[in-house]
Order: sequence, then structure tokens, then C-alpha cells
Amino acid sequence: MLRIGVIGCGAIGRDHMRRLRDLVPDATVTACSDYFPESAKLAAKQYDIPHVYDTGEELIESAEVEAVLIASSDASHAGYVLACIRQGKPVFCEKPLAQTSADCEKIIEAEMSGGKRLVQVGFMRRYDPGYREMKRIVQSGELGNPLMIHAVHRNMHQPDGLTSEMGVSNIAIHELDICRWLLDDEYKNGQVLKVRQSSYSVKGYDNPQIVLLETGMGCRIDVEVQLSDGYGYDIQCQVVCEKGTVSLPDPYAVVTRSEAGRIMPILTDWSQRFIQAYDIELNEWVQAVKNNGGYGPGSWDGYAACVAADTLNRSRNTGRFMEIQMMPKPDLYADGSN
Amino acid sequence: MLRIGVIGCGAIGRDHMRRLRDLVPDATVTACSDYFPESAKLAAKQYDIPHVYDTGEELIESAEVEAVLIASSDASHAGYVLACIRQGKPVFCEKPLAQTSADCEKIIEAEMSGGKRLVQVGFMRRYDPGYREMKRIVQSGELGNPLMIHAVHRNMHQPDGLTSEMGVSNIAIHELDICRWLLDDEYKNGQVLKVRQSSYSVKGYDNPQIVLLETGMGCRIDVEVQLSDGYGYDIQCQVVCEKGTVSLPDPYAVVTRSEAGRIMPILTDWSQRFIQAYDIELNEWVQAVKNNGGYGPGSWDGYAACVAADTLNRSRNTGRFMEIQMMPKPDLYADGSN
Amino acid sequence: MLRIGVIGCGAIGRDHMRRLRDLVPDATVTACSDYFPESAKLAAKQYDIPHVYDTGEELIESAEVEAVLIASSDASHAGYVLACIRQGKPVFCEKPLAQTSADCEKIIEAEMSGGKRLVQVGFMRRYDPGYREMKRIVQSGELGNPLMIHAVHRNMHQPDGLTSEMGVSNIAIHELDICRWLLDDEYKNGQVLKVRQSSYSVKGYDNPQIVLLETGMGCRIDVEVQLSDGYGYDIQCQVVCEKGTVSLPDPYAVVTRSEAGRIMPILTDWSQRFIQAYDIELNEWVQAVKNNGGYGPGSWDGYAACVAADTLNRSRNTGRFMEIQMMPKPDLYADGSN
Amino acid sequence: MLRIGVIGCGAIGRDHMRRLRDLVPDATVTACSDYFPESAKLAAKQYDIPHVYDTGEELIESAEVEAVLIASSDASHAGYVLACIRQGKPVFCEKPLAQTSADCEKIIEAEMSGGKRLVQVGFMRRYDPGYREMKRIVQSGELGNPLMIHAVHRNMHQPDGLTSEMGVSNIAIHELDICRWLLDDEYKNGQVLKVRQSSYSVKGYDNPQIVLLETGMGCRIDVEVQLSDGYGYDIQCQVVCEKGTVSLPDPYAVVTRSEAGRIMPILTDWSQRFIQAYDIELNEWVQAVKNNGGYGPGSWDGYAACVAADTLNRSRNTGRFMEIQMMPKPDLYADGSN
Repeated sequence: MLRIGVIGCGAIGRDHMRRLRDLVPDATVTACSDYFPESAKLAAKQYDIPHVYDTGEELIESAEVEAVLIASSDASHAGYVLACIRQGKPVFCEKPLAQTSADCEKIIEAEMSGGKRLVQVGFMRRYDPGYREMKRIVQSGELGNPLMIHAVHRNMHQPDGLTSEMGVSNIAIHELDICRWLLDDEYKNGQVLKVRQSSYSVKGYDNPQIVLLETGMGCRIDVEVQLSDGYGYDIQCQVVCEKGTVSLPDPYAVVTRSEAGRIMPILTDWSQRFIQAYDIELNEWVQAVKNNGGYGPGSWDGYAACVAADTLNRSRNTGRFMEIQMMPKPDLYADGSN
Repeated sequence: MLRIGVIGCGAIGRDHMRRLRDLVPDATVTACSDYFPESAKLAAKQYDIPHVYDTGEELIESAEVEAVLIASSDASHAGYVLACIRQGKPVFCEKPLAQTSADCEKIIEAEMSGGKRLVQVGFMRRYDPGYREMKRIVQSGELGNPLMIHAVHRNMHQPDGLTSEMGVSNIAIHELDICRWLLDDEYKNGQVLKVRQSSYSVKGYDNPQIVLLETGMGCRIDVEVQLSDGYGYDIQCQVVCEKGTVSLPDPYAVVTRSEAGRIMPILTDWSQRFIQAYDIELNEWVQAVKNNGGYGPGSWDGYAACVAADTLNRSRNTGRFMEIQMMPKPDLYADGSN
Repeated sequence: MLRIGVIGCGAIGRDHMRRLRDLVPDATVTACSDYFPESAKLAAKQYDIPHVYDTGEELIESAEVEAVLIASSDASHAGYVLACIRQGKPVFCEKPLAQTSADCEKIIEAEMSGGKRLVQVGFMRRYDPGYREMKRIVQSGELGNPLMIHAVHRNMHQPDGLTSEMGVSNIAIHELDICRWLLDDEYKNGQVLKVRQSSYSVKGYDNPQIVLLETGMGCRIDVEVQLSDGYGYDIQCQVVCEKGTVSLPDPYAVVTRSEAGRIMPILTDWSQRFIQAYDIELNEWVQAVKNNGGYGPGSWDGYAACVAADTLNRSRNTGRFMEIQMMPKPDLYADGSN
Repeated sequence: MLRIGVIGCGAIGRDHMRRLRDLVPDATVTACSDYFPESAKLAAKQYDIPHVYDTGEELIESAEVEAVLIASSDASHAGYVLACIRQGKPVFCEKPLAQTSADCEKIIEAEMSGGKRLVQVGFMRRYDPGYREMKRIVQSGELGNPLMIHAVHRNMHQPDGLTSEMGVSNIAIHELDICRWLLDDEYKNGQVLKVRQSSYSVKGYDNPQIVLLETGMGCRIDVEVQLSDGYGYDIQCQVVCEKGTVSLPDPYAVVTRSEAGRIMPILTDWSQRFIQAYDIELNEWVQAVKNNGGYGPGSWDGYAACVAADTLNRSRNTGRFMEIQMMPKPDLYADGSN
């Protein structure tokens, strides 16, 4: 039984507690903590968690805790991850890994100095069977080299406080990760385009936005991002290769024919779309911790997404492709992840 | 210019006049007649038709008329067709060819005595590009032998006066024709099943109905028939072969995504579904008349559909498969049609 | 921790062991047995099962075992189920519940004399999200009453020893269960039709077959069954209601466009199709055992499927619909299952 | 009978002759000419065309000719169109209207000085039922304002002599026209992106290319262009509106299931894709000539596409959006076309 401590007892943290308890064998949630101590106590009660700590740091240092899952607020991620590395404890950190590329670099340096991978970032789409099959086909070479990706990320709802920049750093970040993973390539440049704005979504941030990227191999990526007020939660992705294309399927959904229409429902809430991916993700992470290897997306991937997001946000309104400058890839991450 | 006389100036007759005038080269409507003389005069005015006759018989006998198109009431079809054969004039007769198999047999005898084909029946689905491609694939043998057909015929509206029997003889008759054409086989037996009735469609006739057929080769066919009050006009057909299936496509229609649904509209009116088939049908018929050969579905096909429909209607409520007994196929029709 | 004993350590039994170990919380496999003792020992070793018994009866009677899962050969099911009932232990029995309706009736009587439900039958499709959504829509009444079901069950491979009758009692049995569950209705009559046989599948049994059923409310069901040698493992189901239809979706699968075709892969192995359903099934069964209620398909459902299959097999080659005669439904099963 | 003269007796010219003869009522091809006189004579013989002229100019000036259809080489278009305007004769010119925007401006000036529209350009996609339905939906406002278009234009084959620039001016030109028509808006800026090149298509021109455009209202358009060596001839277009999207359907094609795949064929040749659009286009043009109004895409549309293509080609390899500068729209074209 891997004893896991969970930092952050909000909706996502509690969903992971349920998942670890109900669906992940060989793991147990032994401890939790939250910025609001009352939340931690409530979660502990609901999920029979024996240890509650006042701070994430105490949880990380506790001898009861063998591995850590971070689901706290974005701003706290980097600090907790560094604390885990100092303790030599494996850590699963919800995206983003950090809010600045400087913090991501610190994490990479810390992890490198320990000489082994400890960090996994919660880019759960890599565990979705559709994306995995797409990657398998692209890698197999049966369609030739990949040349382009057309992607769409449409949302209905967002919590308050969203900004134009978060449209890239918190929403399109999933595409920033999945596209470089699908193509097995790093980004060379990119820009964010402003689009005619939706009059149904006047909230102080740019909506929609278009993200353009070019990879080292010259692959081009376009991502349409509807931050909110779309017709549903709809994720689309097509990889265009030399000899054909492969597309992410619409989710499994019954089709009705009625009132002179053939209708397939579209999800309205992101939490339903990648449920299976979340389940597989935590199962595989627990196995990786136990095997001391075979981790999914790590610090390097968190860093790559962060640098791309930062650069894209700086490019906004310039009309220019801006160079995405990354440090050389350390050997520690050379084998590729996932 | 093939000079055609049209008998019957109702909606279908006038639609054929428009088609012959606007879309069929080398043909002109030279004459028309109708049971209601006023209708004939109106149509003649609308479509610049020089000759109007008081009766169909006069039209058929007129030296102005080289070929005849019959779009009058069902009960009048057989008599007009026989008159055309007597005059040795090619005739295109809307379905049904006749209302009894005895009348169909008379037509076959008359046509045989003339020694050449003169009659084409308006089974327009044989000209639909979808059904034609299905037939091409079945005949090619690439999927092995055909074994079954699953078909669906759903309607929204019917004119007054419909009966349970007409659900087979006037509605499912299109499937009776198209299935034996797709399979290149005759029917051996069949029955009509009554189904739980739709409470939204209480009109004095059985709705829905299911038609079951077996062919000489042992192929099984099921046809779901919604006579009226369906969600749209929806025609589906799948041929199941030894190594795979081939299906009629839904009509070409834009797909929208909105309000949490992916929606493809379904037609509501039969007249839109096979427009292209009607156009091709009349074009090819005019060419066949000119070439004195190469006709589409003929008297034998009208007879086969009629015998099957009669037998099916007699089987209603018996719970038994009833033998479908046809005369031997005359050599005149041996080469297959269409 | 619910301590479960598994009888039968073949492929399906071991798959359930893996599932109970890895995916079902609050349950553990405490014991196993097999007709071949060596198989039981191997499985015990692979899955860390502490107790191995020489016979299923010993396992059932053991104080270590709180609930039993039966995955042994079909012929042994009824005896083990009855032994479980005698011990008052909850039992999950893979389909079929028994090989004769007489044995099913014995099980029902035994369960009734105990006064509470103990038996669940492994009709896993009821746990598939697609079928569940179909049932939700049918029950909601939004499409009006259900009138018909068109179903297809196509296989590629079968183990040796299959017979024509098993095409109904072991293969179409899934449709026999799911259709009465979708319609919430019992069968009134049915027949099996022989179809033109596939020349690619000459194995001593009828292939394909068509199953026709009528329910008490008059709903009609047709099931095309390809026992083997089909183009894939393909399960299709459409419920036709008064105001529209609802269809089981094709499984979630990426779509490629290449070589002038748009291609969606079809599964070739049944074990992949309902993986998620199996997972949910066992999870919910364990919860039902713990809650002493809320079971899925039970003895009555096993009996209903068995009576229908028997009657259908007797109807083979008669060309007649044969009455499906069931005992009155005992109150114990009145609340409906699942 | 509208007497039409056809200039250019190559494949496209002869296809239009066939169409005018067989499918367009009230029109006849009275004359033809070709750069190679022998070609004109052959076509005249094949299509029973009474008059053959040595030059296009003679044809245009002939009293036999009431309206002109230009299907000659691209470089000759502008000169013939101007000659037609001088004669006051309606002219249908295959795209492009001219090879430079200066020539397009001359045509606009000439047409304006005559005070009425005479020119229609062969942007046939505007007559495709799919695009028309998309436009109807966008214009209806039911999906809110249009914000973006994602388009794809993939080809298998090209004649010799293709250049990178022609990828925009001769291939993507169809999207340049259809997108501004769908959005009812003019272009503000654009650029062509070079993409990782296909190793299966090394022919001296950039392949694939991506075209980016922004309209006056701020709508963004991306067009993926595979000039050749694609998996098929595949045209896709999605308009993204505030409240939903609408997409061009795949062409009507039967679906097969075999060998563990569901397969829909994709066309391989452009000539099949828009057959119906060509037919409707010429029919409506002939009606417009007769009605002296109601023309489809005209000089302004040819000019707009030409200016956009020129600007896009100048932007190539600059990494910048380049302003697309058009003259003010003359009143003559104010009512919108088509």
C-alpha cells in the first residue's frame, strides 16, 4: 500500500481522494492538508484519512507520507514540488507545474541534483485512449511524418477571475502539452491571435483566441480556444501526416433521431470528458512510484508548456511569431516520458 | 426531340413536365391530358404544351405523341399502359404498374406479343447514386454473397385514404423493388407483422408494420415501415454480405454543433430525398426510348412487386410466411433490367 | 473488505480476479477452486489468493468466503448457485444461470424460500454506459413508447464445439436479456430464422441466424446473429420509439483518413468491447452485497433468458412464431432489477 | 434559346458544352474557338456546334453569339472579358478573372462605364448545396455572428508547371472566394505559412501550405492546402459562430463495414466533387442572362480573390500578416452577388 498525502482538499483534490480510495489498488490516502484547515478535516472525515496536517510542508515531511499529490492553488505548486524533491519523495502535481518558467527551471535543477525523476505533472490527456491511439498511429509511421495539427478547445463555463493570459496558460496549456507529445517535438515559435469577439461572452478577457505554433521540425499547429460560453465542452484534435490524418473521436454517446434531426449529445462539463484518463493516470502513477520508474509527463514537460505559454502571452497583439526559447534538454529527461 | 405526352397533370405529372422541359435534353412535352380537363389546360399553359386531349386514350393514339408518361391515379395505370402497347408506343408508368397481379400479367402478355420491351415503371430508387453504388459493390463480389437486407422506411405524412394494405402496396413497394434488384433474386415467401402501434398515429391503419421476405437464394429481408407520423422522412438500407455490409448513406446535409448537440437535419418530405434519382431516371428513359433499348425497371418488375405486395397483404395477421408465387420469367425480361 | 471466493480459474475467472484485485475497492479474493486443481493453484499464486479448495462446494461452505463468483463451465452453474443459496451467501454467476429452465425454476424456488435475493447473473451489458443511456432515454418517455428493436451481434471467432442452438443460448442470449431490460417487458413469442448461409463459414452450425421476438406489449425485435467469421466484433442496437430512435454508439475509436478512405476501426475481440461494463458490474455487485440490496440482473432474468432461448431453439425450422411460456413473476423480483 | 459562344475547347470547355447541351434548357452552344483551331473543329463536330471561329475576338464580335463562356488558358481571360464588355455581351469567365489585380481593375472600370453587370466568374462552390446551406445558416443568425473559419483543401494530382504561388492563386483561390462569401466580409490582412514539407511530394513547390486571413470584422480564417499527393480530394470547411458551428458535409457515399473497419470512400478527383454545383451554376447563369440580372460572383469577386492571392503570395516567408488593400467597392457591386 503506497501511502499518499494529498495537499489541497478542493474539488479536484477530493476527486483524487475518491479515485485513490475506490479505483487505485495498492494505494491509500494517509494524509491531507489544506490552506483552510477546516476543509482538510472535512475531507479527512469523508475519505477516512488518518492524518491531517496544518501545512503542506508538514505533510511532505511526515514519515507517514511516502508520496505526495498536489491539488492546491496554482501559486503554491512550485514551492510544494521543491519541498517534495528535497525530501526525495515522488510527487504528482496538478498542472501547472509552476507559474513562471524560472520556477520550472528551479524544479528541474533540484530534480537533476537528486539524479532521478520524482515529479509527474497532471497532463491527464496523455492517458486518454483516443490520444494514445493517435500517438501510436503517428509514431508507427504508417501515415508518414506528421506535418500539422488542427485543434479545438471549447468551453462553456469558467470560474471567476479568468484573464486573457489564462486562456493560454490554464486552458490551452493542455494542447501545448498534448501537441508536443503527439509530435515528439519542441516548439520553435508561436503567437496568439485575437479573433472577432463573441458578443455573448463579454467578460473582460479575449474570447475566442487562436494559438499558432511551429515546432523544431516545422510542424504547424493551430488551436482554436473558446474560453467560455461555447455550445458545449468540445475537444477536437487532428494530426495531419504526409499520407493521411488521424482524429480524436467524439466521446461515446448514443445517437437519437427525432424531430427531423439526427442528434448526438455533446458534453457540457469538462469533468466528464477525461474521467477515464484521470483513472488511468493515477493508476499508472502509483505503479511508477512503486517501480521507481516509468513516470508520465514530468518537470521537463511542465517547463516546456510553461515557456510556450509565457511566450505566447507575450506575443499577444504583436502580430508576430515570437521565438520560444528553452534551455537544452537535460539527460535526465532524455528517454522521453510516457 | 422526343415528343412525349403526359397523362395526369397532378403534382407528380407537373413535376415531370418541369423536369422534361428544364433538365432532359432531346425531349419535349407535346401533349397532356387529365381526368379533370381544367387541370390539363392549366398545365399546358404553365409548361407551354401545344396539345391538350380530353382523354388519355386520345393522347396515346395521337400522331403528335411518340412516347407516353403516365402519372394519373393508380387505378388508371394498367388501362393506359395496355393502350400504349397496342399503339406500339414506349410508356413510362409511375408505380404501381397495376393494382392486381392479373392486370400485370395482361401487360406482360401484351408486351410479349409485340416482341419487344415498351414499358418502364417508375421505381426511381434504382437511379439514386447511393443504391447504385450499393448494387455495384454487391455485384462486384468484393464482400462475398449477399445474405440479408435490413431496411427502414419512415414517413411523416400521407394523403387521406391510406389503408394498412397500402402500407405495403404503395409505400413498402419501393423496398419490394429495390431489394430484389440489389440481390438480383426473386422472392420465395414473406409476411407482414403487426407491431405495437404508435399512440401518436391513430388513423385506422396499422402503423408501424414490419415486412419480412425470403428470396430464392435464402436471403432474408426485414423492412420497418412507419406509414406516417415519424420523426422525418428517413430511408435506410443495409445489405449484409458474407464479408461485410454496405449501407445507404444519409443525404448530404450540413452538420451543426450547438446547444450541446451535434445535429444533422433529416428530411421531412419524400419529394426532396430522391430528386437526383428522378432526374437521372427520366434522362435515361428518354435515351432508352431513342436507342430502342436499355430500359430500366419494366413490366416484369412491376409484376414482381405487385405479386409480393398482394401475398404480403394476404399474410397479414396470420403469423405465417406465405409463399410468393410468380409465373416463370419470360425470355423478354431475361437480360435483367437496369 | 468483502471476502470473495471464485469458482473457475479459466480466462474469465482470472480476469475477474484481476478486476477484483485492481479495480474494485472493499473487496478481496480470498479463495478459489477449479475443476483442475492445478489451475486453481496457479491462479492463487498469480493473484495472491490465500485459500485454495478442491471443490466449489467446499469453497462455498468455507467460513472464509462471504460471497461467491462463479466462472466455471456452463453445466456446473446451477449446482453451485443452489449451494450458495443453501449457505445464504450472495453469488455472482456468469451467464447462463442454468442450462435448462427447470434448473432456473429450482433456483428461483430456493431463493424465494430464503425470502431475499442472493443471485446476480453476469449480463454485463446492462452496465455499459451506452445501453444505460438508451434505457434512460426510453424510460424517460421523451421519445414516446418503444415499439421495436433492431439489433445486430456479429462475431469473428468462436471456441470449438459451438452448435446452432448455442448461437441463441450462448450468443444471442445477451440480446435476449438486454432487449427485455430496455423495453421493461417480457417475451410473448419468437422464432429463429435460417438465413442464406455464409460460404466462408462452413462449420456445422447455422450461420448466420435471425432471431425474431414479440413482447407482451407487442414490441417487435429482430436480432441478426453472425456466430463467427464476421468482419469484426460488432454490436448494434436501435430502439425505435413512437417519436424517434436511439442507437448504441460505435465504440470510441480514432478516425483516420488515408488512401482515399475515411476509416474507423472495428473491434475484433469481444473482450475489448464491454471492458468498462465488466468493471462497473463488479463494483456495483460488491456494493449491492454490502448494502444487502440493489442487485442487478437476477434469477428471474436468468430464467427469462433461458426460457426464451429454449423456445427459440424449438422454433428453429418450423417457420412459426412459438409461444414463450413463463411462470408468473414472483413478488421477490417485482421491483425490477438494475 | 440563348446562343452561347465558348472560347477554349479543352477539357473544361468541352465539359461546359456537354452541360449546356444536355442539362441547361433554353441555351445552345452556337459557336466555339480555340488557340488550336483543330481543337475547335473537333469540339464543334462532337457537340454539333454550327460556327467555328479562328479567334476568340471574332467569336465575341459575331452576331451569332449572344453570350460568351471563357474556358481558355488563364493568361487569356482578361483580354476576352474586356472584349465582351466592349461588345456589351454577358460573359461567364472561368476563374481566375485575370492574373493581376491591375487587369481586374480594368475589367471593373470597363464594366462600370457600361453601367451594368455583364461578368460572372466561375466560382462554382457558391452553387454547391452544402455551402449554400452553410451560408443560409450563417446569414440567418441562428448561430450568432460568425467568428472563424477552419478550411482544408487537399489534392492528389496537379498538372505540370505548378508553382508555390499557384497553390494560392489557383488552388486556395476557391477558399479565398467562398470564405468572404460565407462571411459577407472583405479581407484585411493575411499571410502564407510554410509547413514541414511532405517527403512524398518533392516537386519544386511548397507543399503543404497554410493560408491565414483576417477579415474587416476580425474573423480569422485558416486554410490548410495540400497542393498534391494527398490521400484524396478532400474539401472541408467549418464556420465557427458565437453559438455553434456549421460544417460542410462529406459527399454522399455508401459506408461499408468489412475487414474490421467502417469505411467511407473519399473522392480522388476534383471533377467529381462539385458536379452538381457546376450544373446549377450554368443553369442559373443562363437564367441571369435572360433576366438581365441576378448574376452570381462577378468582377468584384474576381478582383477580391486576386488581390488576396497576390498579397498572400508576397507575404510568403516573411512571417508577417500583410495588409490586403482593395479599392473602395463600386456601387455597381453594392447589392452583393449571389
